[in-house]
Amino acid sequence: MVVEILAVGTELLLGNIVNSNARYLSEQCASLGLSMYHQSVVGDNMERAMESFQTAWERSDIVIVTGGLGPTEDDMTKEACANVLGLGLIEDSHTRVYIEEYFKRSGHLQEIPENNWKQAVVVEGAKVLDNPNGLAPGQIIEKNGKTAILLPGPPNELLPLFEQKVAPFLNSLRPETIVSRMIKICGVGESKAETMILDLINGQKNPTIAPYAKTGEVHFRITAQAESEEEGLTLMEPVVKELKNRFGESVYTTDEKETLEMVVVKLLKEHNLTLTSAESCTGGLFAGRIINVAGVSDFYKEGFITYSNETKRKRLDVNEETLKSYGAVSEQTAREMAVGGAAAAKADSCIAITGVAGPDGGTEEKPVGLVYIACFLNGKVEVEEFYFRGNREKVREQSVIKAVDLLRRSILKNYKK
Amino acid sequence: MVVEILAVGTELLLGNIVNSNARYLSEQCASLGLSMYHQSVVGDNMERAMESFQTAWERSDIVIVTGGLGPTEDDMTKEACANVLGLGLIEDSHTRVYIEEYFKRSGHLQEIPENNWKQAVVVEGAKVLDNPNGLAPGQIIEKNGKTAILLPGPPNELLPLFEQKVAPFLNSLRPETIVSRMIKICGVGESKAETMILDLINGQKNPTIAPYAKTGEVHFRITAQAESEEEGLTLMEPVVKELKNRFGESVYTTDEKETLEMVVVKLLKEHNLTLTSAESCTGGLFAGRIINVAGVSDFYKEGFITYSNETKRKRLDVNEETLKSYGAVSEQTAREMAVGGAAAAKADSCIAITGVAGPDGGTEEKPVGLVYIACFLNGKVEVEEFYFRGNREKVREQSVIKAVDLLRRSILKNYKK
Repeated sequence: MVVEILAVGTELLLGNIVNSNARYLSEQCASLGLSMYHQSVVGDNMERAMESFQTAWERSDIVIVTGGLGPTEDDMTKEACANVLGLGLIEDSHTRVYIEEYFKRSGHLQEIPENNWKQAVVVEGAKVLDNPNGLAPGQIIEKNGKTAILLPGPPNELLPLFEQKVAPFLNSLRPETIVSRMIKICGVGESKAETMILDLINGQKNPTIAPYAKTGEVHFRITAQAESEEEGLTLMEPVVKELKNRFGESVYTTDEKETLEMVVVKLLKEHNLTLTSAESCTGGLFAGRIINVAGVSDFYKEGFITYSNETKRKRLDVNEETLKSYGAVSEQTAREMAVGGAAAAKADSCIAITGVAGPDGGTEEKPVGLVYIACFLNGKVEVEEFYFRGNREKVREQSVIKAVDLLRRSILKNYKK
Repeated sequence: MVVEILAVGTELLLGNIVNSNARYLSEQCASLGLSMYHQSVVGDNMERAMESFQTAWERSDIVIVTGGLGPTEDDMTKEACANVLGLGLIEDSHTRVYIEEYFKRSGHLQEIPENNWKQAVVVEGAKVLDNPNGLAPGQIIEKNGKTAILLPGPPNELLPLFEQKVAPFLNSLRPETIVSRMIKICGVGESKAETMILDLINGQKNPTIAPYAKTGEVHFRITAQAESEEEGLTLMEPVVKELKNRFGESVYTTDEKETLEMVVVKLLKEHNLTLTSAESCTGGLFAGRIINVAGVSDFYKEGFITYSNETKRKRLDVNEETLKSYGAVSEQTAREMAVGGAAAAKADSCIAITGVAGPDGGTEEKPVGLVYIACFLNGKVEVEEFYFRGNREKVREQSVIKAVDLLRRSILKNYKK
């Protein structure tokens, strides 16, 4: 079965945002065993949106349309699809109630803006998919053996809708079963990771292995086609095992939904370890990442953002001599920050990060991108030195990932056997 | 003149990578005053690549094709374009020498792989653009008053090639002048913002107003077409003025490149104010955002992440009685956190954030999404209550934006006149 993606939104044509939905949906469709030959983007223009939808509808079995379901004048995806398919638009009474409840639930006590009611209108005959994170519902429209799927553009609405409602629907359309698993690794670059399993990738048929490079991580998706889920899992087992063998501790999870920080918080709980952090260049982003894991409050009680030398001394007891001799961005300062942070917060572990995030402040000796990350754990400190590429934001982002991974590896090492 | 982008590459259809080239090129084309109505992606398949290029060539004046210029069998962009345009392919002797030199320059002393010579082949009559960062040159092909521009896929090759060679070329093609300005507002929802200027949007011709919703923000792009830049600016002036009038202090900038946090840091500098932060549910993300502005170190020296009640007491001197009577998520606690944070850091201003980020921990009285944000400034405290929608990440993200905006508004209010 052939699927294609049509994104509707002038903001994409103007380059205001990147089409991350297309990437997500492509990956999901691939893992569902669907073929994709085309993706396209069209602006908020009725004539062109209709034309693009028509083309997609003719050449593919399933058309996923993203965006253009909002309350404004510009939003016209429903209208364009209904026009092409020769279907009407009707107000969905269930969605009307849903919108009302949504406003109540989210504490908006003011009157619902008139144009929001537009979002209760759906294509005649559409299967309506309640959207728990927004007002515009998803819609599945089936006609002449083909399927159009309309999804809201905001990724935080689209992703859960796809995962919870569209993926099971797409899966039910296929005769055979597709089973897929994810292996996530951190600490090995994409090229190297791929080279390490090139023989497996080259020889693959069923299951297949597809690499996905993320910032600081590589994910491998293994997909098998089989008569039953059990058969699929059996087919994948030796491949999963072999990947785990080759990447060893760099594999942090085989659970699709588990993030690196979730794994670390699980390890903290498992070993009953408290954590704190002392951040300079990342200025709270490491803590922000850890605290994004719900239920971390028993293990992470406080953190320090010490951006100036003075606060590194005052809060973390970093030696004035250390700062003077080696500088704020040095192995020695990182080490003392980690030790001092753990002491100040009376925590079992502490991550400290200090670096030159740029764009200014770099020298020949300490260039932009140089970052020291220290991990204090039960009295021992490990410090790593990194040279990150990219702009200020990118340097800080990579620092946070490496810091989370350093903590993970330190705990694993400490509690081995 | 109408431009469109065609990306060639199966890796995009599989979701291995996001089409960041399309975003970059769209933004560049918009700023060059070119209209874009379509973008598309097609796989490494000759028939479909030719079809897609044919469609683009027919409906647009300029087609930018990205990717598929590599040395492998899969790479067929040149061939597809040459076929559609009825042109031949020839080896470019200059590029052959360039490839040889590139190998030497980049220290590759081994023999040049046979298939790399394929990259010296160009479309007959093409203007060849030397690629300083890779082997495949860019190509500009003009025929029947239309233009095809072929660019290599890797962003580190495409971006400099576009900026240095393609942009000047495109600029020379354009007869009229396009001027555009951005007005960014914070604190008014997308629907409401649009309703507030519906009369302007409905009546628009030249200049036009296009709204873009971001998390917690709305951006309006105003674009005018004119004979000269001056005339364009004159055309836009009354519209810009009217938008500023209607949105008042919600307008935080009219500078395309300026972010909300950059504006706040500018205000801190202007009034010589130091800042600190005391974060509970956002756990460092507010500080992380502020510190993303380079050069903030003179104004932001340290911050507190106080996730537990105990650390709120210890670091921020929040009254035990307050926590007991009103709870950690309360106006009173937020207020004391802000006052205590400023005192502990000896800062002129302090943002404090405490809330229920979810997914657990919500009650009927204090539901998930309830967040209190306090701003201490020169002895005065302002506290705002919010009910945010969305998951944990979204609640925290919105909290950060509202906190940055509250600080901005507080400074403006304090230093009015």
